Amino acid sequence: MAEQLWGGRFSKSTDEMINDFQASIDFDKRMYNEDIAGSIAHATMLAKVGIISEADRDDIISGLKDIYKKIEEGNFSFEVALEDIHMNIEKRLTDAIGEAGGRLHTARSRNDQVALDTHMFIRRQVVEVEKLILDMQAALVEAAEKYSDVIMPGYTHLQRAQPILFSHHMMAYFGMLKRDFDRFKGVYDRCDIMPLGAGALAGTTFPIDRPFVAEQLNFESIYSNSLDAVSDRDYIMEFLSAASILMVHLSRLSEETILWCSREFFFIELDDAHCTGSSMMPQKKNPDVSELVRGKTGRVMGHLMAMLTTVKGLPLAYNKDLQEDKEGIFDAIDTIKFSLAVYARIMRGMKVRKDVMRRAVAEDFSNATDLADYLVKKGLPFRQAHAVSGKAVHYCIEQNKWLADMTMAELKELSDLFEEDIYDAISPETCVKNRNSYGGTSYQQVELQLKLAADIMAAEKAYVAEKDAKQANVEA
Amino acid sequence: MAEQLWGGRFSKSTDEMINDFQASIDFDKRMYNEDIAGSIAHATMLAKVGIISEADRDDIISGLKDIYKKIEEGNFSFEVALEDIHMNIEKRLTDAIGEAGGRLHTARSRNDQVALDTHMFIRRQVVEVEKLILDMQAALVEAAEKYSDVIMPGYTHLQRAQPILFSHHMMAYFGMLKRDFDRFKGVYDRCDIMPLGAGALAGTTFPIDRPFVAEQLNFESIYSNSLDAVSDRDYIMEFLSAASILMVHLSRLSEETILWCSREFFFIELDDAHCTGSSMMPQKKNPDVSELVRGKTGRVMGHLMAMLTTVKGLPLAYNKDLQEDKEGIFDAIDTIKFSLAVYARIMRGMKVRKDVMRRAVAEDFSNATDLADYLVKKGLPFRQAHAVSGKAVHYCIEQNKWLADMTMAELKELSDLFEEDIYDAISPETCVKNRNSYGGTSYQQVELQLKLAADIMAAEKAYVAEKDAKQANVEA
Amino acid sequence: MAEQLWGGRFSKSTDEMINDFQASIDFDKRMYNEDIAGSIAHATMLAKVGIISEADRDDIISGLKDIYKKIEEGNFSFEVALEDIHMNIEKRLTDAIGEAGGRLHTARSRNDQVALDTHMFIRRQVVEVEKLILDMQAALVEAAEKYSDVIMPGYTHLQRAQPILFSHHMMAYFGMLKRDFDRFKGVYDRCDIMPLGAGALAGTTFPIDRPFVAEQLNFESIYSNSLDAVSDRDYIMEFLSAASILMVHLSRLSEETILWCSREFFFIELDDAHCTGSSMMPQKKNPDVSELVRGKTGRVMGHLMAMLTTVKGLPLAYNKDLQEDKEGIFDAIDTIKFSLAVYARIMRGMKVRKDVMRRAVAEDFSNATDLADYLVKKGLPFRQAHAVSGKAVHYCIEQNKWLADMTMAELKELSDLFEEDIYDAISPETCVKNRNSYGGTSYQQVELQLKLAADIMAAEKAYVAEKDAKQANVEA
Amino acid sequence: MAEQLWGGRFSKSTDEMINDFQASIDFDKRMYNEDIAGSIAHATMLAKVGIISEADRDDIISGLKDIYKKIEEGNFSFEVALEDIHMNIEKRLTDAIGEAGGRLHTARSRNDQVALDTHMFIRRQVVEVEKLILDMQAALVEAAEKYSDVIMPGYTHLQRAQPILFSHHMMAYFGMLKRDFDRFKGVYDRCDIMPLGAGALAGTTFPIDRPFVAEQLNFESIYSNSLDAVSDRDYIMEFLSAASILMVHLSRLSEETILWCSREFFFIELDDAHCTGSSMMPQKKNPDVSELVRGKTGRVMGHLMAMLTTVKGLPLAYNKDLQEDKEGIFDAIDTIKFSLAVYARIMRGMKVRKDVMRRAVAEDFSNATDLADYLVKKGLPFRQAHAVSGKAVHYCIEQNKWLADMTMAELKELSDLFEEDIYDAISPETCVKNRNSYGGTSYQQVELQLKLAADIMAAEKAYVAEKDAKQANVEA
Repeated sequence: MAEQLWGGRFSKSTDEMINDFQASIDFDKRMYNEDIAGSIAHATMLAKVGIISEADRDDIISGLKDIYKKIEEGNFSFEVALEDIHMNIEKRLTDAIGEAGGRLHTARSRNDQVALDTHMFIRRQVVEVEKLILDMQAALVEAAEKYSDVIMPGYTHLQRAQPILFSHHMMAYFGMLKRDFDRFKGVYDRCDIMPLGAGALAGTTFPIDRPFVAEQLNFESIYSNSLDAVSDRDYIMEFLSAASILMVHLSRLSEETILWCSREFFFIELDDAHCTGSSMMPQKKNPDVSELVRGKTGRVMGHLMAMLTTVKGLPLAYNKDLQEDKEGIFDAIDTIKFSLAVYARIMRGMKVRKDVMRRAVAEDFSNATDLADYLVKKGLPFRQAHAVSGKAVHYCIEQNKWLADMTMAELKELSDLFEEDIYDAISPETCVKNRNSYGGTSYQQVELQLKLAADIMAAEKAYVAEKDAKQANVEA
Repeated sequence: MAEQLWGGRFSKSTDEMINDFQASIDFDKRMYNEDIAGSIAHATMLAKVGIISEADRDDIISGLKDIYKKIEEGNFSFEVALEDIHMNIEKRLTDAIGEAGGRLHTARSRNDQVALDTHMFIRRQVVEVEKLILDMQAALVEAAEKYSDVIMPGYTHLQRAQPILFSHHMMAYFGMLKRDFDRFKGVYDRCDIMPLGAGALAGTTFPIDRPFVAEQLNFESIYSNSLDAVSDRDYIMEFLSAASILMVHLSRLSEETILWCSREFFFIELDDAHCTGSSMMPQKKNPDVSELVRGKTGRVMGHLMAMLTTVKGLPLAYNKDLQEDKEGIFDAIDTIKFSLAVYARIMRGMKVRKDVMRRAVAEDFSNATDLADYLVKKGLPFRQAHAVSGKAVHYCIEQNKWLADMTMAELKELSDLFEEDIYDAISPETCVKNRNSYGGTSYQQVELQLKLAADIMAAEKAYVAEKDAKQANVEA
Repeated sequence: MAEQLWGGRFSKSTDEMINDFQASIDFDKRMYNEDIAGSIAHATMLAKVGIISEADRDDIISGLKDIYKKIEEGNFSFEVALEDIHMNIEKRLTDAIGEAGGRLHTARSRNDQVALDTHMFIRRQVVEVEKLILDMQAALVEAAEKYSDVIMPGYTHLQRAQPILFSHHMMAYFGMLKRDFDRFKGVYDRCDIMPLGAGALAGTTFPIDRPFVAEQLNFESIYSNSLDAVSDRDYIMEFLSAASILMVHLSRLSEETILWCSREFFFIELDDAHCTGSSMMPQKKNPDVSELVRGKTGRVMGHLMAMLTTVKGLPLAYNKDLQEDKEGIFDAIDTIKFSLAVYARIMRGMKVRKDVMRRAVAEDFSNATDLADYLVKKGLPFRQAHAVSGKAVHYCIEQNKWLADMTMAELKELSDLFEEDIYDAISPETCVKNRNSYGGTSYQQVELQLKLAADIMAAEKAYVAEKDAKQANVEA
Repeated sequence: MAEQLWGGRFSKSTDEMINDFQASIDFDKRMYNEDIAGSIAHATMLAKVGIISEADRDDIISGLKDIYKKIEEGNFSFEVALEDIHMNIEKRLTDAIGEAGGRLHTARSRNDQVALDTHMFIRRQVVEVEKLILDMQAALVEAAEKYSDVIMPGYTHLQRAQPILFSHHMMAYFGMLKRDFDRFKGVYDRCDIMPLGAGALAGTTFPIDRPFVAEQLNFESIYSNSLDAVSDRDYIMEFLSAASILMVHLSRLSEETILWCSREFFFIELDDAHCTGSSMMPQKKNPDVSELVRGKTGRVMGHLMAMLTTVKGLPLAYNKDLQEDKEGIFDAIDTIKFSLAVYARIMRGMKVRKDVMRRAVAEDFSNATDLADYLVKKGLPFRQAHAVSGKAVHYCIEQNKWLADMTMAELKELSDLFEEDIYDAISPETCVKNRNSYGGTSYQQVELQLKLAADIMAAEKAYVAEKDAKQANVEA
């Protein structure tokens, strides 16, 4: 077993099983890029303020770049005995360049180092997630535009309620994703704070230049309290919250996709490439991806719950419990990125059965509100009009017919106010067209939504480009 | 049993037990103010665009104001048979003013009505929470200023690590609350969107004027998609996320308060008025409030989990499951408001035992880093200096002494670099003073933090005042 | 404000707001029966072993019975200043009978007293829940028997998979509820342990007789460790786990009920008395109860999460955090009892549309497995038969027909093994009848399940009766 | 990309990215032993009832044993394109033995196959967990016996409350683990039910012999409903519940271990081999393992929440969401096994500082209850005695002394009942000795607890041995 770097005070070596238990290298190695970029910035600063020599700095930087290259090429073997990514890299550096390597850790601690790496890693991932949200929004807009003339039943309580445009339905998800994007912007802001320089917990006695490090690594701000810097996991909890809400949105879309693929709804058909079959039942074409995304929603929520519970009740500053901050968020990142990416494909591959949707609208009472509204416009108070419409529905069910099948005589029986124009007023097309209030389902309003969406996506694209540029600077 | 207002289509009345099960009046009556203010704005708009007459509008408004007054005075009896706050008020209005009351519900549905009420209610509560965060921040600053000269051990792993200022410790919590405040601003923004006019799900066929309603009710923006408007519960999930993170912060402070009150730490004494005793053990003085706040953290997290799970997998648009959105957030609101309010009192009533804290710093090895730093400044690479310091600690433990008790001869044994100035370099005061990097624990840095805090609180105060004014306008 | 009973050590009275915050009387008053029954048993024991006189005992018991009667009659006003149910009752007792009242609390603490009350309360509620599970099982069996000849599509991935009996579907839920019942038996066992006599945490110096108290209160066993007795909340966490799993089962049934009520499935019709309408859409008949039960699943899971989080990381023995154990479980109890009770009504009121289900089976490929099985029985390896069946489905989709519509020539094209008996082999009735493996959907197997169910319910009924008798004994 | 085995119906191959998303081979390969053992039992049964020939059976079995050997030796490469462990093995088998391999899947589906594997896997893991619980109980008993004469302060609210034996404290955890063991027995019972033979959802048309398979695989019972068999995940949710409660227990012990290792408590010293140091602070010896176990509690709770949420609201029977059942429970299994194993080591390596604990008892008011009890025994009602004791404590605090330091005159001032024997009555040894009620902390009672513990462990050992034997039979 390799010697631990903090072994001075101890008279016995760590029990191997326990070392395995507490080592984090299996998952934190994912942050090698951030660890190396952070160390380069730190070394540069140490030399600038005179804590190390320029020669040492140069040795450190070229040594680190060498290690970076080895890792990228798959030629670096991580050792569990060295616990974590920081020690793995530092040990290798010291082996390679000697004493100068030992100077790199001056004026920093693993506590602020791991905080720095994680901030940088999450910050980058937030932007990746935002890009995928944007692409998913684009896929929704494409579907809305492609099927702009499709009328479908709108549901409440999974009961057909009122005719709506399929595009309008798609754009409801656009709105959710818009808020997701905004929430991740908040996560970014509260992640874009530099912890390095906080030392173990109290700052350092060395004359370091934190703004200079922040500038090199493109951080917007710097933690103004060192205890807070090393014990803050807000950005992880907040990321997981935003991720959970995002997954809740995708789970709703998944539920609908699954319903719509059923024989009973039969509203859409997914691309064969996006479905799987059954080992036993040859006829099956299952919307597996939607089911998986719906299922994985629980997984992301579980990670959120885990993190909240883990941090709850911890005294300041750093406690080892906080090492549990990584696996959950790494898995959540993979899950939401994958879910967004596959869903955009699914939306783009999906075919809409216009005729089936149209029939579902015709053979239903979802125009009952319009019949009531018709009466209101002729002067009946709303509650009375509602009651008349209810009676009409009741009568039709008994007679096994739809509202549009009622004769004028039958209608007059219920109210004198009915006239011939009632038939047009309750046709699906009119129902849709007439819901022309702002945000309503009319063709005109949906067109307006699409125009707004274009503006929103343009702004999001610009935001992402700016943040992306910021990250690019700081790659090792 | 009172007649249900939507009874037209049914041939049987609802089973009474089931009515109880699904009635929400017991908890949603809390939103009577919002419901009435919303109805007044709606009626005003209906008249403006000519859907109802001005006479009807005036009857409606004075009828609603009458009901508001009755509720405020406790002279309104809510009926479970009328299900919810909306029906309770509308039924009473119609009883009072007749047919005009039946016209109020024109061009709206309970789906967008309840969404409106909830948005307005949460929006107002966010500001109340922010005020209490601000007051708690003030209490922390007061404590930091009052005990500006107190040195205590800083901890990692609950082991004494390095000497810090008590004020520095207080300000770590200030930073957390600052982020909480910012998170709630995000909640506010995503709550400050008007859903009214979405109808049941698809908009309405009436020529309503949503911007005019939004203006009356001081909403910043309007849902641009009606399906989204009635099914969005993001702002509730996001509120509960922000509340959970806030409670995690308070739970950490609680853990520390409880530790500090223990006989073993003995760092602080709470005001008698903030503690309770034991029915069996006369000597006990228990930090019950801190324990309760720590315990209630789980409760708020539970509400978050409940809401996420409830919305997960729901198809659009409204489903009755969403009625579960209120009790949890109402309880969470009460819990965090109460927790913040009592905690501010506790911080203000707390007495710090300066001498006990100072002794804890003296009788410890928390200056071992400073000893290592001393050597680094004399030229030793960090890793070697760290090893020397480890050996010194090891030696002292065997000799049953502290670092400051070592003779120069003993020190020289470990490294030639030690000189007389080592004793000053490792005194607690020097340890603190020397951690003068930005965000560090030095007197100078903590003073700077306090200055920044003043600016932050001023900005927060201005924000809250502005939002408060916005709410004031829309009281019924 | 009333004087606190533990006030001796304090120089200031408790801040009123904080008193409100930490008082539990608002919710723990629900346990007055248990508190009084426990106190009577305690007093009886104290007299038996000579700690108090028989006269004192008699005064105490008659005083407590008086209070019990007052509470039952609604003539007892609970005071928040007295914090909890224990103090409210003890104070009133002492007011009524004088000094003897002060002796009741000898050899016990609020810590073991509240633990006793809660154990007794939960123990009783477990039996109530079990009764409702049993009734729900009966409702499922009734439905299975009433509709024993109904064939419906069985689903996987919400795709029609194979024809099954509706009764078979009902009995799947019977099996889930059977495990729920068993799980609650485990909860009962781990709740049926008496904590009284543990004192505040360490036992008592008085010569108490715990077995005698346990016998009076019909406890199966006694905590053998006093620290464990006052800090154990396992039975609450385990109750909430069992409740969550139960709700997950009901949520699945709810999802299906909601699907089946949709116009698209149209498989069942709920009783009008169990549905509600819409304030805006007159035609709506919404399965609100199912939606609410599905929604409330999240709520119960939230309570579980809250409790686990609250107990996590607490040192022994009692901490005030544990006071948070009641509200969540009380609400969970109400929720699952209500959910079970209303669901049994719904199942009993539901009408099944046999014809719609039968049509759904005919117009589908859910007999494709049977076509493959047919070939396997004629000697084709399973994987090849599966492939042939897949091709047949593919061909039919292109030709817009069902498998039963294929001509013998078309079939022969795919495999020589097809003969005339294929048409019978793939009729829905045959498909069902042939799935005669143990646990399969055949008429014979479902009949067997119903027979097993009768035995299970008889055993459950006996169990519940026995436990019920045990509780009856200990009512105050 | 390898050809999918269910490809017949499809005209396009699955999108590769989506294949990766939905493949489970990365985690379900862990069940290769169960998958192969299950297939052997299935093939044996198929031959017994005549569905396949004996020659085919023999080929299948030897082919499977070959694959098993290859996997064990690390010579089997799993392919993502083949999705899962079942397909990976079956494809390889068919490649090796030809057509007979294609007959293995007769009369079963992946739905019941994966259910079988998971039941077998979890069933075995439950026993492994129980063994580790037993060993942890043994470690607690060893500590209780080794330090049987150590007196320490018992705490409530983290305030010193009453003197207790260290052994008594250890045995509190024994009680918790006893309940954990019992809960896992319940999990075992509800996992020990065989699903194979349920087919995809409805049973099979083949004349299979499920009891014969159950016998080979040593299952106690068989699912009597095929829909339930393939959609039941209760045993996973219940395992995770039991695991969460177990972790809550370990988290409480961890909190105490961490407190006791602090300089302030200083009650115990962990073995150097079980701690780690700091990269920056040479003096640190951190109880990392305890912190990690406390932190990982959240993780296991997160998995529970994930699973409950995932299953919530799923219609019958199988849905792909259920594939999410494995990763969480696999991680939970690893976590609790590791946590139990390392904790047993920690308890065995820990040294107790008897003198420090004794001093903590002496210099405190934790004997105040005994002083009150003394007065009660002299005839004072409890509440009055409590008040006197409170005044005594108050007086001592003002005079800066302990109760034992009060003179007889001072005591008499408070109550005439005090006599010389009061000093003995309030010595820590007497306080402990006198708490001799059943379950109390007296030496005699703790000895009794240890005797009971020996019996409990003997019974647990016998149980584990029996279940272990059952598993051994069914290894592939």
